[in-house]
Amino acid sequence: MSGSVRQFEVIGAPFDGASTLGYPGSRYAPDRIRHQLKWITQRVESGEVFSLETGELHAAPQLVDGGNADVVAHDLMTTLERTSARVSDSIRAGNVPILLGGDDCFLYAGSKGLHDATDGTLAIIHFDAHLDVMDRNRQQGTHSQSSGMRRSLELDRASTEHSIQVGLRHFNFPSSRAYLEDSGLARITAAAFDDIGTSAAVDRILARISGADHVHCSFDIDAIDPAHAPGAGALEPGGLTSRQAIDTIIALAPHCDSFAVTEVNPMTDHQDMTATLAAYLCYYFAVFGQQRVSD
Amino acid sequence: MSGSVRQFEVIGAPFDGASTLGYPGSRYAPDRIRHQLKWITQRVESGEVFSLETGELHAAPQLVDGGNADVVAHDLMTTLERTSARVSDSIRAGNVPILLGGDDCFLYAGSKGLHDATDGTLAIIHFDAHLDVMDRNRQQGTHSQSSGMRRSLELDRASTEHSIQVGLRHFNFPSSRAYLEDSGLARITAAAFDDIGTSAAVDRILARISGADHVHCSFDIDAIDPAHAPGAGALEPGGLTSRQAIDTIIALAPHCDSFAVTEVNPMTDHQDMTATLAAYLCYYFAVFGQQRVSD
Amino acid sequence: MSGSVRQFEVIGAPFDGASTLGYPGSRYAPDRIRHQLKWITQRVESGEVFSLETGELHAAPQLVDGGNADVVAHDLMTTLERTSARVSDSIRAGNVPILLGGDDCFLYAGSKGLHDATDGTLAIIHFDAHLDVMDRNRQQGTHSQSSGMRRSLELDRASTEHSIQVGLRHFNFPSSRAYLEDSGLARITAAAFDDIGTSAAVDRILARISGADHVHCSFDIDAIDPAHAPGAGALEPGGLTSRQAIDTIIALAPHCDSFAVTEVNPMTDHQDMTATLAAYLCYYFAVFGQQRVSD
Amino acid sequence: MSGSVRQFEVIGAPFDGASTLGYPGSRYAPDRIRHQLKWITQRVESGEVFSLETGELHAAPQLVDGGNADVVAHDLMTTLERTSARVSDSIRAGNVPILLGGDDCFLYAGSKGLHDATDGTLAIIHFDAHLDVMDRNRQQGTHSQSSGMRRSLELDRASTEHSIQVGLRHFNFPSSRAYLEDSGLARITAAAFDDIGTSAAVDRILARISGADHVHCSFDIDAIDPAHAPGAGALEPGGLTSRQAIDTIIALAPHCDSFAVTEVNPMTDHQDMTATLAAYLCYYFAVFGQQRVSD
Amino acid sequence: MSGSVRQFEVIGAPFDGASTLGYPGSRYAPDRIRHQLKWITQRVESGEVFSLETGELHAAPQLVDGGNADVVAHDLMTTLERTSARVSDSIRAGNVPILLGGDDCFLYAGSKGLHDATDGTLAIIHFDAHLDVMDRNRQQGTHSQSSGMRRSLELDRASTEHSIQVGLRHFNFPSSRAYLEDSGLARITAAAFDDIGTSAAVDRILARISGADHVHCSFDIDAIDPAHAPGAGALEPGGLTSRQAIDTIIALAPHCDSFAVTEVNPMTDHQDMTATLAAYLCYYFAVFGQQRVSD
Amino acid sequence: MSGSVRQFEVIGAPFDGASTLGYPGSRYAPDRIRHQLKWITQRVESGEVFSLETGELHAAPQLVDGGNADVVAHDLMTTLERTSARVSDSIRAGNVPILLGGDDCFLYAGSKGLHDATDGTLAIIHFDAHLDVMDRNRQQGTHSQSSGMRRSLELDRASTEHSIQVGLRHFNFPSSRAYLEDSGLARITAAAFDDIGTSAAVDRILARISGADHVHCSFDIDAIDPAHAPGAGALEPGGLTSRQAIDTIIALAPHCDSFAVTEVNPMTDHQDMTATLAAYLCYYFAVFGQQRVSD
Repeated sequence: MSGSVRQFEVIGAPFDGASTLGYPGSRYAPDRIRHQLKWITQRVESGEVFSLETGELHAAPQLVDGGNADVVAHDLMTTLERTSARVSDSIRAGNVPILLGGDDCFLYAGSKGLHDATDGTLAIIHFDAHLDVMDRNRQQGTHSQSSGMRRSLELDRASTEHSIQVGLRHFNFPSSRAYLEDSGLARITAAAFDDIGTSAAVDRILARISGADHVHCSFDIDAIDPAHAPGAGALEPGGLTSRQAIDTIIALAPHCDSFAVTEVNPMTDHQDMTATLAAYLCYYFAVFGQQRVSD
Repeated sequence: MSGSVRQFEVIGAPFDGASTLGYPGSRYAPDRIRHQLKWITQRVESGEVFSLETGELHAAPQLVDGGNADVVAHDLMTTLERTSARVSDSIRAGNVPILLGGDDCFLYAGSKGLHDATDGTLAIIHFDAHLDVMDRNRQQGTHSQSSGMRRSLELDRASTEHSIQVGLRHFNFPSSRAYLEDSGLARITAAAFDDIGTSAAVDRILARISGADHVHCSFDIDAIDPAHAPGAGALEPGGLTSRQAIDTIIALAPHCDSFAVTEVNPMTDHQDMTATLAAYLCYYFAVFGQQRVSD
Repeated sequence: MSGSVRQFEVIGAPFDGASTLGYPGSRYAPDRIRHQLKWITQRVESGEVFSLETGELHAAPQLVDGGNADVVAHDLMTTLERTSARVSDSIRAGNVPILLGGDDCFLYAGSKGLHDATDGTLAIIHFDAHLDVMDRNRQQGTHSQSSGMRRSLELDRASTEHSIQVGLRHFNFPSSRAYLEDSGLARITAAAFDDIGTSAAVDRILARISGADHVHCSFDIDAIDPAHAPGAGALEPGGLTSRQAIDTIIALAPHCDSFAVTEVNPMTDHQDMTATLAAYLCYYFAVFGQQRVSD
Repeated sequence: MSGSVRQFEVIGAPFDGASTLGYPGSRYAPDRIRHQLKWITQRVESGEVFSLETGELHAAPQLVDGGNADVVAHDLMTTLERTSARVSDSIRAGNVPILLGGDDCFLYAGSKGLHDATDGTLAIIHFDAHLDVMDRNRQQGTHSQSSGMRRSLELDRASTEHSIQVGLRHFNFPSSRAYLEDSGLARITAAAFDDIGTSAAVDRILARISGADHVHCSFDIDAIDPAHAPGAGALEPGGLTSRQAIDTIIALAPHCDSFAVTEVNPMTDHQDMTATLAAYLCYYFAVFGQQRVSD
Repeated sequence: MSGSVRQFEVIGAPFDGASTLGYPGSRYAPDRIRHQLKWITQRVESGEVFSLETGELHAAPQLVDGGNADVVAHDLMTTLERTSARVSDSIRAGNVPILLGGDDCFLYAGSKGLHDATDGTLAIIHFDAHLDVMDRNRQQGTHSQSSGMRRSLELDRASTEHSIQVGLRHFNFPSSRAYLEDSGLARITAAAFDDIGTSAAVDRILARISGADHVHCSFDIDAIDPAHAPGAGALEPGGLTSRQAIDTIIALAPHCDSFAVTEVNPMTDHQDMTATLAAYLCYYFAVFGQQRVSD
Repeated sequence: MSGSVRQFEVIGAPFDGASTLGYPGSRYAPDRIRHQLKWITQRVESGEVFSLETGELHAAPQLVDGGNADVVAHDLMTTLERTSARVSDSIRAGNVPILLGGDDCFLYAGSKGLHDATDGTLAIIHFDAHLDVMDRNRQQGTHSQSSGMRRSLELDRASTEHSIQVGLRHFNFPSSRAYLEDSGLARITAAAFDDIGTSAAVDRILARISGADHVHCSFDIDAIDPAHAPGAGALEPGGLTSRQAIDTIIALAPHCDSFAVTEVNPMTDHQDMTATLAAYLCYYFAVFGQQRVSD
């Protein structure tokens, strides 16, 4: 059921050129998240770390910093291509990549990176307040932060039937609803998550991804409520709590092959509290995802 | 049971001259809330909007901006009079007014506006951390942000027995307790709301207002916890979450004849997150209140 | 079962020289918390105050401001010694001290103050995101903000079997786990608190302290989530809500002989919201702790 | 030429109900300025203080805190009346009052206080970015922060020919220019101040007030550039530097009978830097104004 | 020597997609600058305004808001093309355009707009801390905020011999120096400006542009010191004061045919102080540039 | 007259345990200053950099990052000892150390480091708003941020007659004046600096240090006005401008053997503007100090 211990590679993507709607500034996120990761990892001793949540010792995850993807400030398509290639390389080298955006255009880059490095079907777990299924429009083009999920699901072996969106809320385009209905993409809205609780939400997600060959988990930080994540590209009230987010990632990590955190915005943050939360999401993912569990 | 589709009119009240206790600055709220409303309404297509919470398409509400009430910076009584008259005019013109304070002196102006434009009994649903039942004192006079509920309940056809306060917490004057006991005004404290949950709280509110001819809902943003609404006149811990607030407004909207949001304070806010929350409360009120449900 | 009405003495400790890991700045906390206490106590009338949470009148607690302990900016050991002596003096004079840190080195000063002024066993209820059981290390020495619980439990009559930590989360040193296992110190992690709810958590705490002769309750504000308490020395996501914290203190107050709030940091706070929360914790402790209940 | 040593009395006026145009928040200024005054006066030894600017020892000024004027939050006219009476009482008791606003309505209260407590002509030195000579308008009435100079010059023995405005800039009402021309009120604009330098500016001011029996100096902090005084009611670029302001006050202090600092706004300040500057202006006024020099 | 009264048209360019080096966020500048322009223009009476700087009445400038250029968030080249066309149209319609960036890519759009709408030689007065003469590089391409001056001088009738840069400071690429030497572009560094004073600096600028047929003045707000303009894309110490900037614009306005303010960044600003300064620069330009003076 | 090209070594001292009076937080300065140094040095090409101030190409200075001194968070004396030893080692290795505090206790560590690594007399150029000549007191002990200059001048070969303080202002202890008079330490107050200008101030400093064998320049960032350096331990109005500071360092650099910047405080800064200024001071020091000029 479980495999060997996995190694994680942190890859930064300091680019926010596709933040066509929300606040720009996520270009500074990889730097700040890495800074906070040092705060967390200072408590590792002899290759082990003590988890208060489990009460147990865990092997400290093998977490290497692979530096930044070769983003190009003025060129979105090149940036996406190189970042997805960088993610693919990481996977081919045997790592589980942890991609630090950058804006949510990297939802697509992360999905494509896993897709291109593997065979078989690809499931996507997409945490976000927004749908990101815009096909194209005049202001945003086709690959902005608003189109990442649509572009991802268009990948050859992407499986919409195994993919799911979590944390959605408020109002969106009627045309987006049409897309959702047509495609059959599943969702757990923030309201529903609050109703059913973390445990049931995790069960639904796991049931959804079950049967997919590979799973990419992409976490737009605005899935979390602005009370807990003020440093985001948009401050949408009514989101997940940080506790819910952490507990969910703990449960999902063994089932995922790659992870991305996007839209963390140091320019709108308060004392790096959102960068700190993002760093914890990454570290929990690594600690609890050291062994891949087949679904 | 349901009536025809209602039209909503946004009326600003950029005045904080009665903020005698809390932080001043709510004079800037109408401007910032309107700014955020544009963010929300950009996703309307062909007169419809997709609600993630319901999963359904809804008619985009008819929401017209009626400009600002004719407030007078140095004259509270004139400001209240003109604002309540403005609200009355809106109602007489067939609209459901959405009044954007300004400080909580507009609790009274909103109540009076609905009262004066209608016959029959008036119920008030008052969301607030504080009681606002001060009769008079030296520092605040008789119509400050601390007296709005008392003044409202003194209106001829205001019905205390159908009115209720929601979100109250912490400590208050013993004389205020005496008033509450004498008047029979109902309440759901923030602690009680947390205990019983949104659904039960909504039931209690609906039961309370049942039988009143008209209902004004006035929402002091500090009913919500400062974690979710830091841009307020006072930062009282232990309040409602934004999720609870949104879900409650969705449920109450069809039962209300006018709505007000007060005490949003851009000078103490973080990146407009409270103005954004206030804009959502208004928009949810409009989307889900398009058809009046008789109680 | 209940004793006579108790008097509370506020003692400030404006010192953050032992904040060797987190943000410095808690030296400014006593000033700001006292400022907010004035906001709260302005609603006392004729020696009584109305609690919205209970719906009842309560005697306004006898809360005297004892000024600041004689801290010495450049000398930690003298600071701890004088502060614990100051706490002891307060207790010997018949008061229940409420100690306002300063950083969490005052966890030890508070414990020692109660210990030295009394006979019999001492229980410690320690709210914190962190363990504070570091024995010694090069950067922090032996009495920093990271060692307070260990030093406290080394006091002669400190009873580990009656002591408990609440709000812990994330990752810590394996050697700290060894200490916890060896010592038998109990805990309710933030995740567990969220699972079982406030009422059950209170029951566990009360069961744990039952049988101890004296109880010190020390509250590092970072036990609370940074959404609710951004003005802290560290912003650890996934903590208690302010509502949970308030309700817990209400329940524990009658069982405690002294109280401390530490690590409130005005330099990282937003509009004093954390200082306000801290002031409320103190005032709830005083209102509901006026009569000591023997366990 | 010089008289005996004078005593100074600090009087707070925590009221911003007349801030009808600029940012509200100056109600918090007296508290913050006093806080910063403690920072400054901690270096007094044996009744003396060492001035770096002169290189000499000076007697530490007799500076007593007279508490706050009896302002009434909801009543401007009563506030002005009581504050001016409070200033008059201070003068009659032999003090030099230092009035800490509050908004610039206190320009009038300060002038009137000196006027009413004395005989003979009254000169006013008015530092401000704005004219404050509005007669009346609908939004502001007759005694707002925009009318203080006009109301002051209407006092019986106020002498326009000995009064002067300093720091004015940008654009104003044509009707205000008419008033200035008609009344003969003198001015040194911020641009002119920058051109001629502090020394020449001081000379012009001293020449202007020469011959008046009494002199009130009222300093709206926005006379100073927002770079140096960001915590103000309006942020008007192109103002005086803090160095120019300090040097000017040093020179004027012996010629003045009362002093006021207004419009310091802690809600828009950065780390109390403007409150600190205001506290220094007051302390320089006291140190260098200990002996009245007859003009 | 002087012509007829000119009309000014404000054109917004809410785009910061070319801010490849500095802080993004200038997309929000047009909105905030317009907001502050309302503050300034409220003092116009009967078509006149009183200038404190001159002591005279001036005709209030004819300043119309032409709305925003048709920028496209994801497409820099289209954005530049449409914005320059929009500027050209404004000129052809007889206006003096005042272009509100957006980042400094609009230096080129403004220059090109004037260039394309006119015949004859074009001089450019470029205020900036930086050179903006990058030809191309991998991260920034050819038309970013770092290349605007180079692209502008490549326009057919752009006259380098009549163009000048003002406010430059610190360190730059040796290759940029080579370009400056080769091209003969003139400059007044911030250090030199401080040495020689505003009047001499203005003389040098006027001498330089003398003989050019048309003059575009483009003002990157970071030419001004971050003390006075903290809301900028880069905070380069040692720049011009706001007083120097205002006085310079007053003097240059009659000699210019179009004006642009770029790189104002509300996301890094303090209480809109930089947007306020930018609004004043625009308004001074309009008041004092109402009559074109031929050089 | 000039020697060979010098190499500079950046040494961080992330410790603020001696900030007994001002704001703590300078422990974060080395990290932020280094971050800004990267911004500056990105414009080096082929080992050269173009200085706008001189208009010339300069060799890019050899600037190596020596990491942090071995500071110990809870132990001031060990921290000072190790840091001064680290500075000495750097000098002995042939470098010019650039020490990045940390609080102003490092004034002493820097002086001692140069002193101990060299023979002959030591001159100290001390930029500061404050004197730092406190001998000892109860709160601060003997080696706090308030005693650095006194401790430095007590070094065996420190030469008070060649040492000078620059930027001093406001009020200080009479006993400090006695010390200054007795010791003969020279000074240029901020007021005097403003009067005489940068060039004359530089001349005075150079005349003062002339004849000393070695020169340490220590720059407490609060010598600069809080308008330009808000991120400081204390915000003392009336200080130097950033332009004056830069021009002075350019002139002094060839005469100095070591440099330190202290009291930069990221916790009170605005968008790193003070860290940026500090980074520029260091880089100007290195560019213009590459060749030692004998006095």
